[in-house]
Amino acid sequence: MNTAEQYKDSLRARKIELWIDGVRVDEPLAHPKVAPAVEAVAATYALAHDPAHHGIATAFSDLTSRPVNRFVHLFRSTDDLVKKVLLQRELGRITGTCFQRCVGMDALNALFIATFEAGDVPHARFVRWLREVQQHDEMVCGAMTDAKGDRRKRPAEQPESFVRIVERRPDGVVIRGVKLHQTGAANAHQILVMPGQALRTGEEAFAIACAVPVDAPGVVMILGRQPSDDRKGTPDAGNVRYSGQQVVVAFDDVFVPSANVFLDGHLAAVSAMLDAFTGYHRASYGGCKPGNLDALIGAVAEVARLNGVERTPAVREKMIEMVHLTETIHGLGLAASHKSTRHAAGLWRVDALLANVCTQTVSRLPYEVVRLAEDLAGGLVSTMPSLADAAHPRLGPILANVMGSPERGRMLRLVEWFTSGAGSVPLRIECMHGAGSPMAQRIVIDRHADWAGKVRVARRLAGLPEV
Amino acid sequence: MNTAEQYKDSLRARKIELWIDGVRVDEPLAHPKVAPAVEAVAATYALAHDPAHHGIATAFSDLTSRPVNRFVHLFRSTDDLVKKVLLQRELGRITGTCFQRCVGMDALNALFIATFEAGDVPHARFVRWLREVQQHDEMVCGAMTDAKGDRRKRPAEQPESFVRIVERRPDGVVIRGVKLHQTGAANAHQILVMPGQALRTGEEAFAIACAVPVDAPGVVMILGRQPSDDRKGTPDAGNVRYSGQQVVVAFDDVFVPSANVFLDGHLAAVSAMLDAFTGYHRASYGGCKPGNLDALIGAVAEVARLNGVERTPAVREKMIEMVHLTETIHGLGLAASHKSTRHAAGLWRVDALLANVCTQTVSRLPYEVVRLAEDLAGGLVSTMPSLADAAHPRLGPILANVMGSPERGRMLRLVEWFTSGAGSVPLRIECMHGAGSPMAQRIVIDRHADWAGKVRVARRLAGLPEV
Amino acid sequence: MNTAEQYKDSLRARKIELWIDGVRVDEPLAHPKVAPAVEAVAATYALAHDPAHHGIATAFSDLTSRPVNRFVHLFRSTDDLVKKVLLQRELGRITGTCFQRCVGMDALNALFIATFEAGDVPHARFVRWLREVQQHDEMVCGAMTDAKGDRRKRPAEQPESFVRIVERRPDGVVIRGVKLHQTGAANAHQILVMPGQALRTGEEAFAIACAVPVDAPGVVMILGRQPSDDRKGTPDAGNVRYSGQQVVVAFDDVFVPSANVFLDGHLAAVSAMLDAFTGYHRASYGGCKPGNLDALIGAVAEVARLNGVERTPAVREKMIEMVHLTETIHGLGLAASHKSTRHAAGLWRVDALLANVCTQTVSRLPYEVVRLAEDLAGGLVSTMPSLADAAHPRLGPILANVMGSPERGRMLRLVEWFTSGAGSVPLRIECMHGAGSPMAQRIVIDRHADWAGKVRVARRLAGLPEV
Amino acid sequence: MNTAEQYKDSLRARKIELWIDGVRVDEPLAHPKVAPAVEAVAATYALAHDPAHHGIATAFSDLTSRPVNRFVHLFRSTDDLVKKVLLQRELGRITGTCFQRCVGMDALNALFIATFEAGDVPHARFVRWLREVQQHDEMVCGAMTDAKGDRRKRPAEQPESFVRIVERRPDGVVIRGVKLHQTGAANAHQILVMPGQALRTGEEAFAIACAVPVDAPGVVMILGRQPSDDRKGTPDAGNVRYSGQQVVVAFDDVFVPSANVFLDGHLAAVSAMLDAFTGYHRASYGGCKPGNLDALIGAVAEVARLNGVERTPAVREKMIEMVHLTETIHGLGLAASHKSTRHAAGLWRVDALLANVCTQTVSRLPYEVVRLAEDLAGGLVSTMPSLADAAHPRLGPILANVMGSPERGRMLRLVEWFTSGAGSVPLRIECMHGAGSPMAQRIVIDRHADWAGKVRVARRLAGLPEV
Repeated sequence: MNTAEQYKDSLRARKIELWIDGVRVDEPLAHPKVAPAVEAVAATYALAHDPAHHGIATAFSDLTSRPVNRFVHLFRSTDDLVKKVLLQRELGRITGTCFQRCVGMDALNALFIATFEAGDVPHARFVRWLREVQQHDEMVCGAMTDAKGDRRKRPAEQPESFVRIVERRPDGVVIRGVKLHQTGAANAHQILVMPGQALRTGEEAFAIACAVPVDAPGVVMILGRQPSDDRKGTPDAGNVRYSGQQVVVAFDDVFVPSANVFLDGHLAAVSAMLDAFTGYHRASYGGCKPGNLDALIGAVAEVARLNGVERTPAVREKMIEMVHLTETIHGLGLAASHKSTRHAAGLWRVDALLANVCTQTVSRLPYEVVRLAEDLAGGLVSTMPSLADAAHPRLGPILANVMGSPERGRMLRLVEWFTSGAGSVPLRIECMHGAGSPMAQRIVIDRHADWAGKVRVARRLAGLPEV
Repeated sequence: MNTAEQYKDSLRARKIELWIDGVRVDEPLAHPKVAPAVEAVAATYALAHDPAHHGIATAFSDLTSRPVNRFVHLFRSTDDLVKKVLLQRELGRITGTCFQRCVGMDALNALFIATFEAGDVPHARFVRWLREVQQHDEMVCGAMTDAKGDRRKRPAEQPESFVRIVERRPDGVVIRGVKLHQTGAANAHQILVMPGQALRTGEEAFAIACAVPVDAPGVVMILGRQPSDDRKGTPDAGNVRYSGQQVVVAFDDVFVPSANVFLDGHLAAVSAMLDAFTGYHRASYGGCKPGNLDALIGAVAEVARLNGVERTPAVREKMIEMVHLTETIHGLGLAASHKSTRHAAGLWRVDALLANVCTQTVSRLPYEVVRLAEDLAGGLVSTMPSLADAAHPRLGPILANVMGSPERGRMLRLVEWFTSGAGSVPLRIECMHGAGSPMAQRIVIDRHADWAGKVRVARRLAGLPEV
Repeated sequence: MNTAEQYKDSLRARKIELWIDGVRVDEPLAHPKVAPAVEAVAATYALAHDPAHHGIATAFSDLTSRPVNRFVHLFRSTDDLVKKVLLQRELGRITGTCFQRCVGMDALNALFIATFEAGDVPHARFVRWLREVQQHDEMVCGAMTDAKGDRRKRPAEQPESFVRIVERRPDGVVIRGVKLHQTGAANAHQILVMPGQALRTGEEAFAIACAVPVDAPGVVMILGRQPSDDRKGTPDAGNVRYSGQQVVVAFDDVFVPSANVFLDGHLAAVSAMLDAFTGYHRASYGGCKPGNLDALIGAVAEVARLNGVERTPAVREKMIEMVHLTETIHGLGLAASHKSTRHAAGLWRVDALLANVCTQTVSRLPYEVVRLAEDLAGGLVSTMPSLADAAHPRLGPILANVMGSPERGRMLRLVEWFTSGAGSVPLRIECMHGAGSPMAQRIVIDRHADWAGKVRVARRLAGLPEV
Repeated sequence: MNTAEQYKDSLRARKIELWIDGVRVDEPLAHPKVAPAVEAVAATYALAHDPAHHGIATAFSDLTSRPVNRFVHLFRSTDDLVKKVLLQRELGRITGTCFQRCVGMDALNALFIATFEAGDVPHARFVRWLREVQQHDEMVCGAMTDAKGDRRKRPAEQPESFVRIVERRPDGVVIRGVKLHQTGAANAHQILVMPGQALRTGEEAFAIACAVPVDAPGVVMILGRQPSDDRKGTPDAGNVRYSGQQVVVAFDDVFVPSANVFLDGHLAAVSAMLDAFTGYHRASYGGCKPGNLDALIGAVAEVARLNGVERTPAVREKMIEMVHLTETIHGLGLAASHKSTRHAAGLWRVDALLANVCTQTVSRLPYEVVRLAEDLAGGLVSTMPSLADAAHPRLGPILANVMGSPERGRMLRLVEWFTSGAGSVPLRIECMHGAGSPMAQRIVIDRHADWAGKVRVARRLAGLPEV
């Protein structure tokens, strides 16, 4: 298992094409808009070497017969699913943001199941690839979301809006298209390309799942902007060390050798992959988001203490409410994991109903936590001058009076980072869309709601015959 | 394990003093306001003999070395806690109401722990008593809530508002006072009297936990009214077979032999009992209430079908929302149970934080389900004439037109029963107060919130030193 | 203007066919299920003679050139609309329930507009009829809601589910069908029959608006049940004097003379009537419901005082919240009335957008007030034995202890009456459906939202050209 | 009345000391972080010359006997209060942000009342000053919020946290201290200094209200940061023209001549000023915030159209909900204004209860609108690369695919601006704190709730005697 430093060194060895604000960046790790995101991933490597978290951060792999970082591990038991959520909460607390490895972890488990259903050859290919990922402890970016264009049209009607195979060669395929919202792509080693939606007969060209090195020829990355991203690396950063990352990844006729092609036109397996992935990933949010919220709540609690209102009943009520909402999410993530069932491929799957109920709460409750945080933190959160001014001989004394204490200023910046800065991306936009839209989740809830069973008990209570 | 019929026969053998609407009732099982509540308890006996539910409805007792009904079983493992919640959900569906045995079950487990902490003699007494309860498969009513009077005063300032020891005899004690909200008391065999709040030095007389047969001399029961309780046994009943029950139980100088006195002035053990009981009982609501809500949702789904609007998007959205809210509660009940820890007495305790988060949702979400149900069911729910009128030659044809079909009328009555009839007691008042008030739950959440840990991660993210 | 006593006397002069629980009732005013509803209407007559409320309860009629009870008055100005809402709030407080005259008042104003649009003859007929209503100060029941049957079908596909003309005679028409949810019908003098939905060409037979005396041959009334309606007239009544009323009214081939036929196949006028009526009635709820909620909040405040927790911060917070929610509704009712516009018929119409926003809040906020009320009032609300027992020599002393004081018991019964008794009909079911379903309101909001204007300002801010 | 250009010219004539990010800025109007805020104020001048809005944007002053811009007008009638709200909504739409003149307008009306209560001399001074403000059509910044320090301490215990008189001279006073959150201070001509809280005997030095030119010696301004403020003036600006502004204003021993001192130790008048100001300003939010929300809703509606999902029922539902929430706020702002009462000073005051109910909704509902906006707009809102990249030959084609159309990219940036950019300050932080904290509002609601009246009606309904 790599250390944080080994991970960073391995990143430097890549030759990626990364663009930031219209400029191609040769040394991403040195760029203030990339460095904090790399640090967040590095925390996932560091934790695996922290004895206090050994139980949740590592696992024993039956592929390599050695301990591996849990982020490249298969969900071989209910315990694996539960520990995943606990690990995510811990890293959500440590980094305060998205640590970018969950999509990859959930995706490789989903593909394990999907390739199993696709047949022996795909499965064997995938297992071999995964073994190497485990051996090199690589960071894998899961690439699902296509541009999609007009939502009323199918992929075949607007192929340019989807990643698809544009050429077949004896030794592999050539893919073209763009994936959006690629979490951590610029900090990864490999991209696991997968379809983002169920496909029908005639749409086989879009049914492609494969692994692509981030620096494969034709892979172009454009860094997404985040709120207040220009503050990164400055005194007003808020979260002084960590950040998340979203990248637009274009596949500009990228060649993928056959060994790295896992699904190719397997329509049913695509659906199996989607079912498994969405279940896994929606339960994941029951881990990381409560961790992020813990940090926000802590910041607000500290501001309340510095304001001297920590024990005021109305303040206390709101602080308790923030905890209540946070634990609601976490409890549902745990419940979905505990209530797991075994798939024939030998992996355990979370409960689909509870996982989707979990993300429904993720699409709502953090917004209320943010609202309460802004209530308790006070107006200065978004009207405070730059912390850089505090060192200025003319302005320092004035601001000392405004901020009360330097630590209060720092804490307010952290609250702002979470509520309307770069930290609001993991805490709001990702909560809303990162695991599929709320509407998509509700369709799954509808499907698993057992309406017939509910009607049956109602009719019996009303004294009506069964239908 | 008794059958439903054996249970009912055993009730007939009692000689209880029960008053209903100012009249003493000699044959409670024949009274229309008692019979449906007995039926709900009987369902807990019947389920233990249903092979399909054997796994959740029964358990193996290490006290009797035989299978017992889970309602008299000890929580010897995490699995026991989880199965309890699953059992509660199933019975919540079957009866659509409160089946009245959970307080007793949770109370006997809490007293097992409390007597363990109180010492060998109390514990041995309690275990002996419990073994007999298991052997006779008795229904135990847990009696906690005192009248309380002025909430600003302590028990010693208003002793008449609390059950307390008023006389000590060589062979036992005499207790006096009133317990409110006694779920299922008129359908039970024994009352497990316990203090309803933490007590201080000088309040030892109130620190009494003991078992009292329901027909012990001096035990007086007065049946609580429920909304629309006069409809029980009529065509407008709504839930045609089952109902819950709340009783005021007065202890009018009741003698309790020493063998049945489990706590007597053990102040610390009282707190241990309260901690254990509230945790257990708040997780219980994650089982029964979702079961009740399932039945309400089923009724609404059926009304929507009969109205022909089942697939209308706006209707569908609300139906999904009702399921989402219901599963939120259930998931948290499961999570609190899964995340259990072992107590030295050999029982497993639920996670206090999650159990209280669970009941906070219970004090809110069912109200929204009710609101959505009333939205979808339509105005006729509370403006429909009596179903008895449907058989009248003059009115039948008119009402046929109004109700559309007889089954729609029945279904609407069931919805009304849940939302503003006798079924609203378990679904609203009990949800709000049955496991302690929301305010009490929030105090526990505050206590378990790990504020220091949250502040620590926030300060680290802001680049501040530890405090 | 009639006094309350004159009103009651006039009711006794009718010969209505009223059925209650399968029995024909000859003296409705003496029936415990009718008397409280009559009292609520009587309060509207009494208030007109109360000098303190003269300004809101009466108005000067330009039809009779004399003061009239506002409930039969036309909305001749913005001031009339605002005073209507203030009157409704006051009566909502006085009665704690539905006083049953608003549908008639809003309907006669809507028909004034609709007949104006239908032509001179319909309008002249209507004005003549209205003048007499004013002169005799009659109570008019507005009858709109048909049985509707399968919501996917039009009236012509299921005529039996709608009131329609079944025969034309030289001197009038014969109507047949059933109207549901007829507020106060058994306490009225005349029924103003109107279509309940927009109609299309070919559906002219359903486009009938006319006035029918409540005791016209063929008019059959069946009283709707309400939660806990058997308690009316007993010590457990809750609201000891007042109640609402909903009646199923069947028109069993009722002849209507031409002079009383106001719309007959006027499809466009039907739409105008519906637009006007829904606007008026949705703003009305901004008056009566806050008045009802005032009484509930007062009951809870009194229980809190009797419990000694009136100043506890968490209790205070919830009490303030109940007021906030109540005033939100009222403020919107006022706003919709203030922002009125003049119709060519000489009446003022409320703002449709705000009136529908008002009722949307009515379909939600009272539910939250009820939830908070049940939180603050405590569990005894629905577990307390009958108040009749308090007088029993055996039970009195026990219950004295339980209730603390007789007035606390009475107050809890009043809370129960509002939350799950007969008072829950006006406070929940009517709030949800009494002014049309929430879905219907949202369609109006959509229609009046000025989307184009919003898009225009957004595009301008983003620097995009107009579309 | 000045035009927008005359206003800007007048700003250039000032010699203010303004610091931005540690640098003193000599030409504020040219600075990208100031220019958009000046534009927003300029819109208030421009509108007064727009014939289409003449009725709401201007008024006739009885001080100058000429038309004036409504922002320097006195509330001489209910109509003035209502038109203020309508003007605010229109400008909220035009600018999409805070146009910075409301605090001044509400403050000068509040001081008119307060000086009236303070006596003839203060009032005459104030009226004279106001007349000049009207004649020169100046922008006035109202300065209330002090640093406050430890919320448990009174001003006298920590004078440095409050603006106070530090020296008295024959011809005036010298003030010292800092005011936070000064909306538009860098764009104003004069600062109207006022106490931010009620004061007690012994705190007279803090009871100072006076007018100070923005470029008076000793006035130091430090620009507050806003989320993503570095994007202003770039293609990613979002709102391409307008922005709000908050400034820290230090009074570093500023001399104020007696003619400009309006309150000096008048404790009762300070309370009168606070009462009037909070009422006025809390109703103001019922104007501007709905206007801002209109623009956000329009942006989302446009994105939905560009995505082709505009008519999808679930999308439609959320769009309607956003409108419902927005109009709820506006309706309450209107209601508070309509229900106004006359003060002896000759001004009309809004209804305190409704004004505070209005701002309570402002502290909640916009958060839900933002949540729905983020739901409907999709994840790209906060993961999209810079719009500058779209012009890059290498990246343009890729991003064309991602954004669908250039206008979609611009619209998404506008949504982001509102939800987590500089536009989130007026839409969230100001909504929460700009008119006083929610807690402060609730205290006023409590005070005006008429508890006794509510208890009286409840007791009467329950058949209890009056207390």
